[in-house]
Amino acid sequence: MNSRTDTPVTVIGLGLMGRALAGAFLKAGHPTTVWNRTPAKAGPLVDRGARPAPTVGEAIRASSLTIICVTDYQAVYELLGADETELDGTTLINLTSGDSAQARQAARWAEQRGARYLDGAVMAVPPAIGTPEAVILHSGPQPDFDAHRPALDALGTVTYLGADHGLASLYDVAGLAMMWSMLNAWLQGTALLGTAGVDAVTFAPFARQLAAVVADWLPGYAEQIDRGSFPAEVSALETDVRAMSHLIEESEAVGVNAELPKLIKAMADRSIAAGHGGEQYPVLIEEFRTPRND
Amino acid sequence: MNSRTDTPVTVIGLGLMGRALAGAFLKAGHPTTVWNRTPAKAGPLVDRGARPAPTVGEAIRASSLTIICVTDYQAVYELLGADETELDGTTLINLTSGDSAQARQAARWAEQRGARYLDGAVMAVPPAIGTPEAVILHSGPQPDFDAHRPALDALGTVTYLGADHGLASLYDVAGLAMMWSMLNAWLQGTALLGTAGVDAVTFAPFARQLAAVVADWLPGYAEQIDRGSFPAEVSALETDVRAMSHLIEESEAVGVNAELPKLIKAMADRSIAAGHGGEQYPVLIEEFRTPRND
Ligand SMILES: NC(=O)c1ccc[n+]([C@@H]2O[C@H](COP(=O)([O-])OP(=O)(O)OC[C@H]3O[C@@H](n4cnc5c(N)ncnc54)[C@H](OP(=O)(O)O)[C@@H]3O)[C@@H](O)[C@H]2O)c1
Ligand SMILES: NC(=O)c1ccc[n+]([C@@H]2O[C@H](COP(=O)([O-])OP(=O)(O)OC[C@H]3O[C@@H](n4cnc5c(N)ncnc54)[C@H](OP(=O)(O)O)[C@@H]3O)[C@@H](O)[C@H]2O)c1
Repeated sequence: MNSRTDTPVTVIGLGLMGRALAGAFLKAGHPTTVWNRTPAKAGPLVDRGARPAPTVGEAIRASSLTIICVTDYQAVYELLGADETELDGTTLINLTSGDSAQARQAARWAEQRGARYLDGAVMAVPPAIGTPEAVILHSGPQPDFDAHRPALDALGTVTYLGADHGLASLYDVAGLAMMWSMLNAWLQGTALLGTAGVDAVTFAPFARQLAAVVADWLPGYAEQIDRGSFPAEVSALETDVRAMSHLIEESEAVGVNAELPKLIKAMADRSIAAGHGGEQYPVLIEEFRTPRND
Repeated sequence: MNSRTDTPVTVIGLGLMGRALAGAFLKAGHPTTVWNRTPAKAGPLVDRGARPAPTVGEAIRASSLTIICVTDYQAVYELLGADETELDGTTLINLTSGDSAQARQAARWAEQRGARYLDGAVMAVPPAIGTPEAVILHSGPQPDFDAHRPALDALGTVTYLGADHGLASLYDVAGLAMMWSMLNAWLQGTALLGTAGVDAVTFAPFARQLAAVVADWLPGYAEQIDRGSFPAEVSALETDVRAMSHLIEESEAVGVNAELPKLIKAMADRSIAAGHGGEQYPVLIEEFRTPRND
């Protein structure tokens, strides 16, 4: 891979994340222009060779690639909407967290002003930026991603998801849901085992191994979802629900929190009530697709 | 490993699971005695060489190892409590599903009647029995497990957890909680991505990869729990909660179910309210250890 470390880049927003991003570009050798509302935060980066731009407009003009990473989309509009800032010809990558609708709207807004626009999501904490552990998701026109990929590689494991600008934030929250749910289930198990004097470190390898097994089921279950057909090849939801009752009863009997087990069972119960008791677990996708207000 | 296929074994209870267990023993070459309340269910096993015992007592006397697998613990007591059935000198392994208190109670009961007793849990569906995918957990006195392990190996991946008879069912439900939570979070993500036209099979490899990453964190997080110290090395709960709000808002905005995201945030909110906002995620163990009635 050609590292192309001579490509100039611009980073707007020098909070915790913006500083990490600019630092990774500098480390990879990119001439790096920076701008922040509070200019003092640029100091340590400037000491490392970054060029501070006096205005947002000059920051954008300094490079063909501009990364913006600020608190929220409102801040993006305030920053870029002011003073008729020229976006024509720039590729703008917005790594600010937001939802898919905000990303799509920002894309229309930036494109109307002549920018090429990619939306992104950083699935990493600032200290991980610049290492392979930092996963950074991108969505928008593929040619724009491909053109700047050599520079983006300085930030971590950069991934392209598709043309719909909303994909990066959707994958981001979907990934976070996965992360927290796994941690919560593991905490549930750790609490249960703790009542029998089992240390967390004793239970962890069991949970880790099980997680690996379940992860391997996903591609096969995904095919069932895409086909919309859920034959009970392995086990029927009705059978699962009996074991869910055991999980609730055991949690209550040993005095640990049962909210997560109860939610698991409540969703399965609704699916059974909807007539899916004889089908396999992924039929629950229908419950997840259905909003519920309560 | 010495396969010791000449060891006689007895299986009591020939429902879906009991038949699979007896079938695996037969396949491995063990002289296998069987008993079921409804004798007709023994038919196909007898055709394969199993010996039907006329009474429970005779079934138990036929082998030094008896596996019992019936609907629930009540059925175990009805079966073994009747007619002063002799348990003296037998090793009884109870693979019936139940909770940890039932397992400990059954152990006392069986031991008072002279049996060696192990409690077990089958983390597999009947067709997997006899393959390495079938994980079968055991708890109770280790010498009794070790003595019969060569025979038990015919059933799948047999695991010994510890002397406390309650461990098998605790690990079982803890593992199930892990399984359902992972599947639910993956369904949440699949539903979210589905709103942007992304197929389940497209999202599944991303989820699988992420699950592997999170699984690798568990041993380190477990050390924090055992130390009872949760420094925010990577991220503070306060920061996580902002992203949880994004997950809820995104779910609601695209019209998918938000119950799981809301439970995730509710538990984190309570932990922050208890003063843990500056600590790291596993500090939530305190919420999981605390029952809540609502
Ligand atoms: N930190 C993480 O672990 C992490 C991880 C993944 C994603 N993210 C996302 O990355 C983005 C930035 O996070 P961060 O941790 O860097 O936040 P931060 O440390 O609070 O920094 C916020 C940045 O936004 C700027 N800003 C806010 N409002 C502005 C406005 N109206 N006009 C101009 N500039 C404005 C701030 O400028 P001043 O310096 O002048 O205040 C600062 O540069 C957020 O969307 C966050 O969700 C963060
Ligand atoms: N099937 C699975 O996927 C699976 C997975 C993991 C664990 N398990 C556990 O394995 C155990 C057995 O499940 P299974 O699927 O084999 O259930 P099943 O097909 O419904 O069979 C139940 C068995 O229990 C016997 N039984 C029930 N009450 C009895 C009583 N009062 N006296 C004597 N025998 C009685 C039945 O005898 P009759 O034939 O005379 O009715 C039958 O042999 C359960 O605890 C279950 O939770 C099952």
